[in-house]
Amino acid sequence: MRIKCTVSYDGSGFSGYQRQPGLRTVQGEIEEALMKIHKGERIKITASGRTDVGVHAVGQVFHFDTSLKIPMEKWPIALNTLLPQDISIQNAELADQDFHARFSAKKKEYRYRLYRSFQRDVFRRHYAYHFPNPLNIETIRTASRFIIGTHDFTSFCSSKTETENKVRTIYEADIWEEGDEITFRFVGSGFLYNMVRILVGTLIEVGEGKRKPEEIKQIIAAKDRSRAGKTVSGCGLYLWKVYYDN
Amino acid sequence: MRIKCTVSYDGSGFSGYQRQPGLRTVQGEIEEALMKIHKGERIKITASGRTDVGVHAVGQVFHFDTSLKIPMEKWPIALNTLLPQDISIQNAELADQDFHARFSAKKKEYRYRLYRSFQRDVFRRHYAYHFPNPLNIETIRTASRFIIGTHDFTSFCSSKTETENKVRTIYEADIWEEGDEITFRFVGSGFLYNMVRILVGTLIEVGEGKRKPEEIKQIIAAKDRSRAGKTVSGCGLYLWKVYYDN
Repeated sequence: MRIKCTVSYDGSGFSGYQRQPGLRTVQGEIEEALMKIHKGERIKITASGRTDVGVHAVGQVFHFDTSLKIPMEKWPIALNTLLPQDISIQNAELADQDFHARFSAKKKEYRYRLYRSFQRDVFRRHYAYHFPNPLNIETIRTASRFIIGTHDFTSFCSSKTETENKVRTIYEADIWEEGDEITFRFVGSGFLYNMVRILVGTLIEVGEGKRKPEEIKQIIAAKDRSRAGKTVSGCGLYLWKVYYDN
Repeated sequence: MRIKCTVSYDGSGFSGYQRQPGLRTVQGEIEEALMKIHKGERIKITASGRTDVGVHAVGQVFHFDTSLKIPMEKWPIALNTLLPQDISIQNAELADQDFHARFSAKKKEYRYRLYRSFQRDVFRRHYAYHFPNPLNIETIRTASRFIIGTHDFTSFCSSKTETENKVRTIYEADIWEEGDEITFRFVGSGFLYNMVRILVGTLIEVGEGKRKPEEIKQIIAAKDRSRAGKTVSGCGLYLWKVYYDN
């Protein structure tokens, strides 16, 4: 029986999503809880993708296989009772046997939160990036339009990226202000390592007036990481939603 | 020279405000930063009052005396550079020599945040109280009106309270909903130990239908802690503002 779970986690206390020996990770904690439910049997979970140190998830998705006959609505309760307070299973549903959290994913949505108060805000220090300097939202919006479409995003991923094919499609890029916050929202076919953080870092430089919006086209064409902007802090980044068929 | 500072802190990482040997406290961290600025000289700070373990502050106020000639606008920067990320000095101003953060305070404002989503929210676990059960806001509002005024609040403070005089004046009590959150706001002449948390705990029982709004009058009259409701978690509590003359 294959189960699809939606999980949210506060990334600030984890060494990222992926299981690593001796480190506190999201996968490690969930697999430990599943092992307890399965009386010591090791259950492997497969997520839609990794998230980095300090990066949060509102709607990460993973699947696992089980032979336990627990009613589907009891799975979140059973897991949440065993999980630490910074991970919360939001939903569990029966999935087809060929459902795969990573390979069946059609689109992903990431959001990035930035706040602009003059003094840093103790309550948002793990949840949004503090950027008190002036920013022109309109030029950021103009620049964001050049990101939309199917492009080779070599310039916008960490030079450590091992994935061969760096072509991705960005379907949506929205930027909005709310109070002293700016939210960046990206929906795409997939995202490369550090891609959202470099996109936001580059858009911020446009908003500061250090780059022209049109430069985005040249940066994409260059296929050269050094042409794009800085990688902003992971603390403002949220894996917001993973989209599947149906 | 007496300096008045406004400070915000995230209470979740502290054993409360008040300095205690061997424990991480807000007062301890600020006094350590001040000692560094004063080249090893111990500087004592005096706050408007203590806050408990896990309780937050948006606008706590403290004062201290110094002979250093640092321009007033540099004080927050100098302190914030030395302070940990969960304390942030918002403002510093020159105060009269007879200003006293505690004795000069005229009113205090506390807020309490509660959230109602079915599943717990990892991002609010330290910042709001999770209460998913149905609540009737209107009966809570009706009950809150009986709190306003000058009363002996013996029933609404911890039985460990050492203060003799338990008469306080509540000037304002507001309750509002925003999304899945309910905020309780109290402005009063002063608050006894655990007073806001017991007030909120009792109002919640009214909202659940376990008590009638009018019971508040009898609970106050009884001057008996056991007559009031539970002390809710400190994580939803914020010392929001301290009011002084001028």
